[in-house]
Amino acid sequence: MIGDEILSGRTQDTNTHYIANYLNQIGVDLCEARVVADDEAEIVAAVNALRHRYHYLFTTGGIGPTHDDITADAVARAFGVEIKEDARALTMLRERFSEAELNPARRRMARIPVGAELVPNALSKAPGFWLGNVIVMAGVPAIMQSMLDTVGQKLEVGARMLVETVQAGAIAEGRYAMRLEEIAHQYVGVSIGSYPSFTSQGMRNQIVLRSRDMDLLEQAAQEVREMILEITNLD
Amino acid sequence: MIGDEILSGRTQDTNTHYIANYLNQIGVDLCEARVVADDEAEIVAAVNALRHRYHYLFTTGGIGPTHDDITADAVARAFGVEIKEDARALTMLRERFSEAELNPARRRMARIPVGAELVPNALSKAPGFWLGNVIVMAGVPAIMQSMLDTVGQKLEVGARMLVETVQAGAIAEGRYAMRLEEIAHQYVGVSIGSYPSFTSQGMRNQIVLRSRDMDLLEQAAQEVREMILEITNLD
Repeated sequence: MIGDEILSGRTQDTNTHYIANYLNQIGVDLCEARVVADDEAEIVAAVNALRHRYHYLFTTGGIGPTHDDITADAVARAFGVEIKEDARALTMLRERFSEAELNPARRRMARIPVGAELVPNALSKAPGFWLGNVIVMAGVPAIMQSMLDTVGQKLEVGARMLVETVQAGAIAEGRYAMRLEEIAHQYVGVSIGSYPSFTSQGMRNQIVLRSRDMDLLEQAAQEVREMILEITNLD
Repeated sequence: MIGDEILSGRTQDTNTHYIANYLNQIGVDLCEARVVADDEAEIVAAVNALRHRYHYLFTTGGIGPTHDDITADAVARAFGVEIKEDARALTMLRERFSEAELNPARRRMARIPVGAELVPNALSKAPGFWLGNVIVMAGVPAIMQSMLDTVGQKLEVGARMLVETVQAGAIAEGRYAMRLEEIAHQYVGVSIGSYPSFTSQGMRNQIVLRSRDMDLLEQAAQEVREMILEITNLD
């Protein structure tokens, strides 16, 4: 996520959550997320650190017409490629803007790093792009979501992560933590997390199990359910 | 933010937004945010990268009683210090738990890196801690917020960032982008962002100006307001 508005507290970022859900559902694991400021050096450093490390890097924000929209330039610099007005992008902008409306600021949205594929923008036309393993999307959630839908179909995906959630209700984490750790050690192919939250009824806990192996997941979930049942029966 | 639950899409992170707002209000700029997995090596790498780079580093999550709570160990490893059961932390846990309830899993929450100050937890007693410039807080929002309130009073703060927001309404960003850039260049001490959002009435834009200099901010905001008024009068 690229944008001062998140770091200043102005905007609650919802894109990370949406992208995390979307990617997990199609079989792509999200390994890390960062929010960086609208600062070219920061964006370049983050893009280079993450694109070499992960299979894909998704960015959101900073591709509009205003002076604070510097993502395309930063990504070009990160890759060491030129950035130029792209004829395909200009054609897309012309679907929305007349020649009179297509002023220099709006034309900036047609500036795309050389060698990138465009990601169409169904809502407001100005495209995102895909360069190497980096996918650059808009920050406005509705536009980002439509771009992600287009891109999602072209991603290399793995086996989907399967999820089982066991409600522990008001049973305190400390009552099941030791037994849960044993189960986690027993089922190494299953990732198990315990998540407390405060509700109007007080603390409520959920145990979430994740695996790509359905049988293993079901066995581990069954052990967790039995554990919760045993504790419930003690009460 | 430390936690698989955010990266898997299970949980919408609200802590970043809360912390961003809180810090900005007391005069601490948030420069970067990261979400990392419940993986010791990942946490160690992120803590070491960020604590050397910034004045403070705040973490949330991973300090409960279950096996996936590994933040305290990871922070100790990042600093190269031992982690031990802390007598002060144990006293805090005893406010909530009887000796019978204080099983090994719950006692884990008293394991604190050597040399750390404790951050009290008004809600569920298990403390966070403050080691060097790293402040380790719970992930449950209500607990994190109460910890941040305690910590906030002890932070070294700078002049508060002042904010002015100018509503551009339905005026397209592309219509004011060039003039806004001139204003941004003219007022170098003011950071100016333009933020589109989709509403039920269509696209709406806001221009946000931020500065520590109230007079400069007011002058720049006045120019932005006049710019918007001029465009409105053209319509």
